[in-house]
Amino acid sequence: MRNFNYWFVFSSIGLILMIESSFMLISAFVGEIYNESAVTSLYLSALATFISGLTLSLIGRKRRKEKRISQREVYLTVTLVWVLMALYGALPFLLGGAIPSFTDAFFESVCGFTTTGSSTLINLEAFPKSLHFWRSFTQWIGGIGIIIFVMSFLPLFGGGSSQFYNAEATGITKEQLRPRISDITRNMSITYLGLTVVGFLLFWAGPMDAFDAACHTFTSISTGGFSTKQASIAHFNSAYTEYVAISLMFCGGTRFLLLFNLFRHLSGKIFKDEEFRWYAFMILGFTCVITLSLYLDGNVFSSIEKTFRTVLFQVVAAITTTGYATTDFLRWGQFYWFLFLAMVLFCGSEGSTSGGMKISRLVILVKNTRVVFRRQVHPQALYMVKINGQVYANAVVEKVLAFVFLYLTIVGIGAIVLSFTGMSFNESIGTAVSSMSSYGFGLGRFGPSGNFSSATVFAKYVLCFLMIVGRLEVFTVLSLFTKSLWKR
Amino acid sequence: MRNFNYWFVFSSIGLILMIESSFMLISAFVGEIYNESAVTSLYLSALATFISGLTLSLIGRKRRKEKRISQREVYLTVTLVWVLMALYGALPFLLGGAIPSFTDAFFESVCGFTTTGSSTLINLEAFPKSLHFWRSFTQWIGGIGIIIFVMSFLPLFGGGSSQFYNAEATGITKEQLRPRISDITRNMSITYLGLTVVGFLLFWAGPMDAFDAACHTFTSISTGGFSTKQASIAHFNSAYTEYVAISLMFCGGTRFLLLFNLFRHLSGKIFKDEEFRWYAFMILGFTCVITLSLYLDGNVFSSIEKTFRTVLFQVVAAITTTGYATTDFLRWGQFYWFLFLAMVLFCGSEGSTSGGMKISRLVILVKNTRVVFRRQVHPQALYMVKINGQVYANAVVEKVLAFVFLYLTIVGIGAIVLSFTGMSFNESIGTAVSSMSSYGFGLGRFGPSGNFSSATVFAKYVLCFLMIVGRLEVFTVLSLFTKSLWKR
Ligand SMILES: [K+]
Ligand SMILES: [K+]
Repeated sequence: MRNFNYWFVFSSIGLILMIESSFMLISAFVGEIYNESAVTSLYLSALATFISGLTLSLIGRKRRKEKRISQREVYLTVTLVWVLMALYGALPFLLGGAIPSFTDAFFESVCGFTTTGSSTLINLEAFPKSLHFWRSFTQWIGGIGIIIFVMSFLPLFGGGSSQFYNAEATGITKEQLRPRISDITRNMSITYLGLTVVGFLLFWAGPMDAFDAACHTFTSISTGGFSTKQASIAHFNSAYTEYVAISLMFCGGTRFLLLFNLFRHLSGKIFKDEEFRWYAFMILGFTCVITLSLYLDGNVFSSIEKTFRTVLFQVVAAITTTGYATTDFLRWGQFYWFLFLAMVLFCGSEGSTSGGMKISRLVILVKNTRVVFRRQVHPQALYMVKINGQVYANAVVEKVLAFVFLYLTIVGIGAIVLSFTGMSFNESIGTAVSSMSSYGFGLGRFGPSGNFSSATVFAKYVLCFLMIVGRLEVFTVLSLFTKSLWKR
Repeated sequence: MRNFNYWFVFSSIGLILMIESSFMLISAFVGEIYNESAVTSLYLSALATFISGLTLSLIGRKRRKEKRISQREVYLTVTLVWVLMALYGALPFLLGGAIPSFTDAFFESVCGFTTTGSSTLINLEAFPKSLHFWRSFTQWIGGIGIIIFVMSFLPLFGGGSSQFYNAEATGITKEQLRPRISDITRNMSITYLGLTVVGFLLFWAGPMDAFDAACHTFTSISTGGFSTKQASIAHFNSAYTEYVAISLMFCGGTRFLLLFNLFRHLSGKIFKDEEFRWYAFMILGFTCVITLSLYLDGNVFSSIEKTFRTVLFQVVAAITTTGYATTDFLRWGQFYWFLFLAMVLFCGSEGSTSGGMKISRLVILVKNTRVVFRRQVHPQALYMVKINGQVYANAVVEKVLAFVFLYLTIVGIGAIVLSFTGMSFNESIGTAVSSMSSYGFGLGRFGPSGNFSSATVFAKYVLCFLMIVGRLEVFTVLSLFTKSLWKR
């Protein structure tokens, strides 16, 4: 481990903890408006987080000798950042006793920062508003964190984790890459902030008050899915609010750079992007299939519009891995469970806040299958996987193979371990897929009508592990356990 | 479709139907020994099958102008052979009324020729002996059919479907390939026949009579899993019989060429084969984990030996996709369901009679993942997937990616369709995996204590489709639905 750049790790984590403490302060100010006693725990948490961050920064500054950073520093930093953000983020829940158990507070915080949105809380309406704000804020932070991480850190090391980004970067040298990345980060941040402001105004214009509007904006743009109400969006009983939520989730699941270009240049170029076309098509397709199937079952709502809207809502909430609900779709029948699992596994666009294996990888899998079939018939011809007109190298396709294999293996092993903690077959599969893809709803006791309070302590830590590994795109966390990363 | 070689398709199918009719005759002779009335249906079926086969042969001979054959003729022939063998194979069950419903008779026959071993029969002891013989024979025919098909037809077109075969063939030209293939086919057939004789004698030496010994030899060597007893192997209540069954299943799941070399040269070279090492290790590993876990659960049998033997039996029956049972392992708990599904998905060796995705593909997936991790750290170094010292081309790895993706997609879609027919979530997943991998046991109503009589007619045809697609290694059947195969 010689030449390991501690400075970078410590100072990065320190900086991010200090930023986190400022978000805690903002939540505390919100609590002040409502005169809540919970603000004390937020002030204390902010203080503790700030001091920890400052200390780490100072340690980092002290050892600032080595300036070189490499993959292992970045991977370790990113993993530790998510774990520590969640650890400190649990303090506000824990200190005031709003969530008395450490496990539950940490679980809630991980569900926040990973934008998963599962919860152990059973009476959201009684939960302090300032802590609701903080809880929603964690998802908003996690959302912008993930797009900056995926777009800024991962491409530094190439390897095609973000192929669409590479497409953008074609033709520029490594020296030019850094400024290009900060451009991209800026554009995405602008989009994220812009969407937050517009989302807030749109929600506020409906039956929501400013507080609920803010919280739900945070959790829809980030495809997080926390709600301030036990009944989620259904609580507001408003078609307007549901359509706003659908639109915001849809934006959260779209590649942010596409949205930036759309708004900046007001061009229809977005439809030329293959991943976006698949994304839109999948939402449309699943909505039609489910609506039709519900009609065949005679399982419909008062009006055609309401049926369509309800189905569209659950489909968008699943494909973007937001995990809001306006109805308990698990009650529609076990047939639908499969459809939702499929949507949650392959969902969201790369460079968006969605979890899951990403539609871009599905596209590569499908195109590779077509290439293999063609090669079989014409072995001499040169067929390659092409997306948006760009040829994909074998190494990229093999990386996707490795990613999907690892992803599904971890989901499988996760399900096995969960079933060992007493979850049923369905529940194990459902929660493993859901946590890994940062969706939020499992099957059985862990569906839209239930919550995670009945999971065992061990199961909750397993779920936390799955959420973090899934959120950080598998390789980041697993690389830390490989020998080859450390000996060089 | 110009230049399509009908001659080859018709004459091949005709030949195989005539061979099938001779096997029906043998079954009829067995029935004569027991003076059964069911022999009439066997004679009639043999006649009908022979006449159909002869007619097809004659038609084929008549059009014998075109001598060239290519992939599409082979793929179409192989698919049609399996469908028609099953169709004619259903006649003996249907004609005498032993299985009155056409769907059930066809289902039983498909479960035979694909060596799946699911069944709709609910009182095996009352089923005529001659039809039991035929039923077991279908699996034996299916078993030798699949090794000849995989080893003889598929490699003709390269593409790495059988990578281990390619390893054998390294260094010989295309002109030399044909005689080499007939060598391999001969060696495998000798092994298959030798194992059948030895297996019969070993079973007969135990509590089984000659009839049961023959039937169970047919269904264990072929990893088929049909039994003449409702309680399967447990009926004989003999440790000796169980160990014989374990050994025969183990051989059935081993690459036959390895067995041939082992017996021919009495060498320990078999342990140098990576796939074989994984195969043995997986059996050992799963047996230890499950035995240990049962002890922790306090869920054990009278003696340590009996516990170990029972677990080993179920594990070998799953990893070889035979699907015999000596206990209803589903009752051990839902945790074990996952282990069995995992075993059934990645199981058996290439060039054996097992179904599933094959251990060789699992090895490639694991090694590719390792390669991707290494590449990520040292992007400049050249890492490749190597098995048994041989480097695998990118195209092979991409083909495995396509295979696994298609396989799991078909299992997924199969499960969705099955759940639409009224099966529960577990049952849909269980039967889809089981049928695709030609294992035989599903979950829920379709486990070792149940049978498939309660499945709907539509569900049975879906299962038949999955069994045939899975048995013929996916590409063979799916290629027929691609445009690129037909326009050239
Ligand atoms: K979510
Ligand atoms: K079987």
